[in-house]
Amino acid sequence: MNNLAFHRLSYGIYVLTTQLDGKPFGCIINTAFQITSAPPRIAVSCNKDNYTHDKISNAKMFALSVLTEESSQDLIGTFGYNSGRDIDKFKSYEFTQGDKLSLPLFTDESIATFECKLVESLEVGTHTIFIGEVIDCNVLSNSSNEMTYKYFHEVRKAVAPKNAPTYIEVEKNRDLYECSLCKYVYDEDVPFDELPDDWVCPVCGATKDLFEKT
Amino acid sequence: MNNLAFHRLSYGIYVLTTQLDGKPFGCIINTAFQITSAPPRIAVSCNKDNYTHDKISNAKMFALSVLTEESSQDLIGTFGYNSGRDIDKFKSYEFTQGDKLSLPLFTDESIATFECKLVESLEVGTHTIFIGEVIDCNVLSNSSNEMTYKYFHEVRKAVAPKNAPTYIEVEKNRDLYECSLCKYVYDEDVPFDELPDDWVCPVCGATKDLFEKT
Repeated sequence: MNNLAFHRLSYGIYVLTTQLDGKPFGCIINTAFQITSAPPRIAVSCNKDNYTHDKISNAKMFALSVLTEESSQDLIGTFGYNSGRDIDKFKSYEFTQGDKLSLPLFTDESIATFECKLVESLEVGTHTIFIGEVIDCNVLSNSSNEMTYKYFHEVRKAVAPKNAPTYIEVEKNRDLYECSLCKYVYDEDVPFDELPDDWVCPVCGATKDLFEKT
Repeated sequence: MNNLAFHRLSYGIYVLTTQLDGKPFGCIINTAFQITSAPPRIAVSCNKDNYTHDKISNAKMFALSVLTEESSQDLIGTFGYNSGRDIDKFKSYEFTQGDKLSLPLFTDESIATFECKLVESLEVGTHTIFIGEVIDCNVLSNSSNEMTYKYFHEVRKAVAPKNAPTYIEVEKNRDLYECSLCKYVYDEDVPFDELPDDWVCPVCGATKDLFEKT
């Protein structure tokens, strides 16, 4: 059994959002697929640990912003490597509200958006599959490419956070490294020394040499 | 609402297989994602109309062969645009049996393979989401690229068959065209005249000029 096979499944990169009591919530996911076309329904997978998870369960709706290859590393870092329990993720980013469900959408960073009503949830261990009926969806650009998970890893040199479905457990043998600019602590399973030279901080985009051993 | 947004979700191309009473069954899917890592579980979506669908429900196991960019058009055509009710899909193709569950795997055409025990099924309208615990998985090549749905459409010039989750209903206004070589009838919703000049038969790879109006 070679767990690297899991990296051969193809994914995009999305901001999964919802809104509850007037407040926006969101996180990065890479797992989304269409299930049926009439009515149009999509499935997404979300870690139960994510702050956004319970908000979707309660709000009974969610939105997807399909990021482009030009999407900022900063947005992905903030929404993918931080928790809404600790910071206000939306503070520094422009977002709009969808026409149908008023859900937060990152139209400036996206190639397409979806607004969905939650129709079913299926718990599978650490994660929940949310199934949504698509109430509205739009294409925002025909000139950009959607960001794929492969592009995110190979071109942006990013690594999966621990609560991603695609996170792979490997033997731990490493020191922790902290970004001297934004204080993000690199604590993933690819040893810091083995990250490529052009790897950058997933939160602020700082180069590798700006990290310090903690 | 612009349904073309659904084409901005990222997918791979897979042969989904199973085995029941000693016979292999299989079809092409583009919907697969990892859900959890401990235990490793993946989800796939399959149209209930597919012959393979009920066989998976009964066999309680399934396998995925992750196709490469070099995978033959012929294999994809046979497994994606035909039914096992009508033809013996496996007759003309080399396949192996997985080490753990003896499931059919297309190792020559794949970059990775997975063998899964079915642990849960969730019906969603026309489709079922099958959730499998991965019993074995392997990487077969580090030099090839996995075929993405985008590559399949943009480079191979293919169109989604009607029972694919990503099939989009559009207004019908067209004649039917038949491949003069393999007799495949083109009956999809993109009008035949609007297919690009380098489009080829999804079954046998014949060029567009070899099609005749029926």
